[in-house]
Amino acid sequence: MTLNSIHSPADLKKLSREQLPALADELRQFVLDSVSKTGGHLSSNLGTVELSIALHYVFDTPQDRIVWDVGHQSYPHKILTGRRERMGSLRQLDGLSGFPRRAESEYDAFGTGHSSTSISAAMGMARAFQTKGEKQVAVAVIGDSAMTGGMAFEAMNNAGVYEDLPLVVILNDNDMSISPAVGALNRHLARLLSGNIYSATKKGIDSVLSIAPPLREFAKRLEDHAKGMVSPSTIFEEFGFNYFGPIDGHDLDALIPMLQNVRRLALEGRGPQFLHVVTRKGQGYELAEADPVLYHGPSKFNPEEGLKKSTTPSPKTFTQVFGEWLCDMAHADPLLIGITPAMREGSGLVEFEKNFPKRYYDVGIAEQHAVTFAAGMACEGMKPVVAIYSTFLQRAYDQLIHDVAIQDLPVLFALDRAGLVGADGATHAGAYDIPFLRCIPNMLVLTPADEAECRDLLTTAFHQPHPSAVRYPRGAGVGTIPSKELRTVPLGKGEVRRQSSAPAGQRIAILAFGTLLYPALEVAEQINASVANMRFVKPLDLELLKSLAQDHDYFVTIEDGAIQGGAGSACLEALSAMGINKPLLQLGLPDVFVEHGDYKLLMSQCGLDVAGIAKAISLRFLVKTATNPVAVGK
Amino acid sequence: MTLNSIHSPADLKKLSREQLPALADELRQFVLDSVSKTGGHLSSNLGTVELSIALHYVFDTPQDRIVWDVGHQSYPHKILTGRRERMGSLRQLDGLSGFPRRAESEYDAFGTGHSSTSISAAMGMARAFQTKGEKQVAVAVIGDSAMTGGMAFEAMNNAGVYEDLPLVVILNDNDMSISPAVGALNRHLARLLSGNIYSATKKGIDSVLSIAPPLREFAKRLEDHAKGMVSPSTIFEEFGFNYFGPIDGHDLDALIPMLQNVRRLALEGRGPQFLHVVTRKGQGYELAEADPVLYHGPSKFNPEEGLKKSTTPSPKTFTQVFGEWLCDMAHADPLLIGITPAMREGSGLVEFEKNFPKRYYDVGIAEQHAVTFAAGMACEGMKPVVAIYSTFLQRAYDQLIHDVAIQDLPVLFALDRAGLVGADGATHAGAYDIPFLRCIPNMLVLTPADEAECRDLLTTAFHQPHPSAVRYPRGAGVGTIPSKELRTVPLGKGEVRRQSSAPAGQRIAILAFGTLLYPALEVAEQINASVANMRFVKPLDLELLKSLAQDHDYFVTIEDGAIQGGAGSACLEALSAMGINKPLLQLGLPDVFVEHGDYKLLMSQCGLDVAGIAKAISLRFLVKTATNPVAVGK
Repeated sequence: MTLNSIHSPADLKKLSREQLPALADELRQFVLDSVSKTGGHLSSNLGTVELSIALHYVFDTPQDRIVWDVGHQSYPHKILTGRRERMGSLRQLDGLSGFPRRAESEYDAFGTGHSSTSISAAMGMARAFQTKGEKQVAVAVIGDSAMTGGMAFEAMNNAGVYEDLPLVVILNDNDMSISPAVGALNRHLARLLSGNIYSATKKGIDSVLSIAPPLREFAKRLEDHAKGMVSPSTIFEEFGFNYFGPIDGHDLDALIPMLQNVRRLALEGRGPQFLHVVTRKGQGYELAEADPVLYHGPSKFNPEEGLKKSTTPSPKTFTQVFGEWLCDMAHADPLLIGITPAMREGSGLVEFEKNFPKRYYDVGIAEQHAVTFAAGMACEGMKPVVAIYSTFLQRAYDQLIHDVAIQDLPVLFALDRAGLVGADGATHAGAYDIPFLRCIPNMLVLTPADEAECRDLLTTAFHQPHPSAVRYPRGAGVGTIPSKELRTVPLGKGEVRRQSSAPAGQRIAILAFGTLLYPALEVAEQINASVANMRFVKPLDLELLKSLAQDHDYFVTIEDGAIQGGAGSACLEALSAMGINKPLLQLGLPDVFVEHGDYKLLMSQCGLDVAGIAKAISLRFLVKTATNPVAVGK
Repeated sequence: MTLNSIHSPADLKKLSREQLPALADELRQFVLDSVSKTGGHLSSNLGTVELSIALHYVFDTPQDRIVWDVGHQSYPHKILTGRRERMGSLRQLDGLSGFPRRAESEYDAFGTGHSSTSISAAMGMARAFQTKGEKQVAVAVIGDSAMTGGMAFEAMNNAGVYEDLPLVVILNDNDMSISPAVGALNRHLARLLSGNIYSATKKGIDSVLSIAPPLREFAKRLEDHAKGMVSPSTIFEEFGFNYFGPIDGHDLDALIPMLQNVRRLALEGRGPQFLHVVTRKGQGYELAEADPVLYHGPSKFNPEEGLKKSTTPSPKTFTQVFGEWLCDMAHADPLLIGITPAMREGSGLVEFEKNFPKRYYDVGIAEQHAVTFAAGMACEGMKPVVAIYSTFLQRAYDQLIHDVAIQDLPVLFALDRAGLVGADGATHAGAYDIPFLRCIPNMLVLTPADEAECRDLLTTAFHQPHPSAVRYPRGAGVGTIPSKELRTVPLGKGEVRRQSSAPAGQRIAILAFGTLLYPALEVAEQINASVANMRFVKPLDLELLKSLAQDHDYFVTIEDGAIQGGAGSACLEALSAMGINKPLLQLGLPDVFVEHGDYKLLMSQCGLDVAGIAKAISLRFLVKTATNPVAVGK
């Protein structure tokens, strides 16, 4: 058992080259066993086993920095850098994060989660090394799909300017992200693959390279260019990088000498290096190789049997409710267009693509383009629906303002994963959308309380001649059954769901935005409060607020989003503007980044479960409850 | 006078090809005369005279859509599409916008202002045409610098997938944006230029092309490729576009047949076309040709004399205060790094670049990369200052959250152009930064009231081990003289600037965030109110709020930003959380997109001048003023 002896990259470096393939086998098995017990990302991590070993074998980590783009492929890296024994706590409260995190290890040079950031970050580090006169290398490991994100290109374009930059970009080309990769770059990579791997085999470049000094390689490439044999050049050379590859990312005998090469070149001031590595998602686990999408992010399973279809039907998620609505709405309206930035599965567009392939757009990991593309569509009378996670809409904030809202174009944003997301943690939290959307003129912001209402509010928003966002959380709600019809609700109108019968002077009104309506209703039973399902953050139901103010003494707002500037603040603003000054308690997500962990546990920690809500209200307004047997006071 | 007879592109199309050069001369002269009278963008518009004529001569506008990237080069287009006589009202209240706007003309297919959106928008339109079965073409006209913005690449990558897309991208290559263009793409273009123009001349391609059927051109290019004569291929072909050019963008005899070519190809389903046009900023006006940066956006001037250095010194702008602070702080701290996304002049970094060339980074029009690059720098102990307009930070919102704030890295954002910006209008307003920043954990948000305080707050923020944003408006403030020293103020502490002497029960406290402190002070004299200069939106000075609440009855908050979720809401939240429920009036920017016009006029329209502030307060709290002689009431 070699793996057990590896507590840090120093231990790894003690091994001989010959021992590494066996270590890779062990590591791969460990990843499989570990993920099958905890759940987490699998396919991508099976694909980076050899690359992780080779990187830590060759580079002087942690002095050399490795930035893992997106970061869900960093488990082998975590295991090799002293965190093997903690892998059982992966993605759990107080356990290891599913992504690199600076706070977790000195080997995690940069926290990731969202795509396409690695080259910018690594370039920043590389320039810092140069500024400080330190001999270190920064490495960005980026997938082929992450490479299509615009900021990766911005970074390539900028990095190519510095001719002595100690930066290595490793393209981990597995021809597939979560959704199949799309776009011209993908085609370009395919061509490089078919062309160069062929010639590499023919000419035995791999074996030559491991012994050839770099100059010889350069000379050879120059010569090939001159003869027109290697043509066209790669897009990466156009950006000023030295391009090497493609090489087999599961072949340690190819990887290690090549990494030694590029590290030396980077250290010698030969400028940014680009290594094209080909790996296979799910490598070594047959079931994942056959269906890497299925094994992208499995929950717990038995590796011998593979993922089983659950026999007990799981409750319908908001994502599924959206997916069904999208198909139904598309049947009803031929102008509907569905757009996703590379999240077909996660956003529930699989059926829509099957049924409406010509109205389906996966634009790649390219949120900015997705939104402005939708705006262009809307200018021509189409009715685009952009299905996007709340956290990823942050990537297209300017496009939403500048291209959609200023022009008041009817683009509907279906914001999945609003609020906390559980195991994915702070990087993926959809906590800020209410504040960052409601300050934008022309925007409508809708917060359905359950599945049935989600469908109705999607229909409502879709028919508005304005930009709109309907936000809903990960997973299932209370399980209300959506109507078959495409019903609407009155714009900007909430509803009273419970009426308090407390005596005058002691009446509390809870204003609920979104799915926290249901715990709010439970609490209201305990404390005899009224509850309004507000439905709309913008436009806010002013009449309802006013009428509640007439016969209530205390307000509570509740939302699964940031308190600062959130829906509760919208209520404060509106009440204040109407000259109503009553005590108001804002409940929502606190002003900290909430880490990964079980969703229910986290919500409980944030005081947003029934007990927490009841406690907060009773403490603030001295309401008589089981835990606080004091009558209504101040 | 041909130009006077052109009221629409239909009139233009009546002219013979031979008449066009004379029209171009007239149009150029008109642009020069017009801009010298109104101020506005000059160099870029002198560069697009022939291109605008050729586009409207060849394309079937408005059915074919032209999307002008950024849009500050669209004056000739405006003049040719029925707006010649309104050019005198350019960038003024109720006058023509300095950018394309859909509400202004059916010829303005897409509103622009920010960079790099055109290809996405035009692609959306082109796909809409195809979906509807309409034979129309969408054209994106994009500058070489805008091409470095990541979303342009995202769009190119996506567009290349559709092999019959009726899209034409015209690269308006003038080798210069507002700041000199940087990056690898720029170098690539330069190489194309030197290589191909040479061979074009040699082979007489230009003249051949105008008569050759497209197939012949393709055959020739294919042949060249096979022979290795054209090598390497352009980056644009790698993306799946047909590349033509480079051609002289001031030569109508080259432009018109080429545009006819690409339009026909696009209509025939031959896929996305890419035309590389070379123009010269300032073309035809010697002074602007010699210094296109100076003539990028001049105010009024005499064209015969050119821009004169004003003899009366103009007051120091916040931008200058920042620029001087940056140099002084860089002297004091060798770890300071200055970063701009292509706004060296606008952000006040000219001196810094001169004095600290190795610590200066112009990363191109690449806000996303700028911020994550800064985060990478900060990880290695550098202290990056990102100088960025408030409106452009919207482009890097996710990077700010995901790469800077979650990791709590000390990156200082110097947010210029906060609040309304006047002539540039809604696309450039910095109205949303307070709401979208203060909801992010770890962020500090500072709002200096004047020049001296701006310097102090920059120093204060720079020393914090957290991310921070210091926001300040366009132009000058009241003219306070910044200290020579690098002084700090206590974190999260405001100050009382005026104490009301009104009797108990009638005391008003105005809480001012930013430069509106000064009109607030004037109003306070009229109504005998207290005034606090709050300085910090986050962390908010809770002690000051509490102490003011003790001896005041009414609150007014004032800020030059959106009311929804703004600094006033932060006060409401804090007061509410402290159990203080007093009447509070929020003053700030209304929930609409404020159009272009004179800054003072616009602020007056928004009720944010002395008269408006006084009126709003007196109406709300029935305060006795000159215009409202009623005593304090409710």
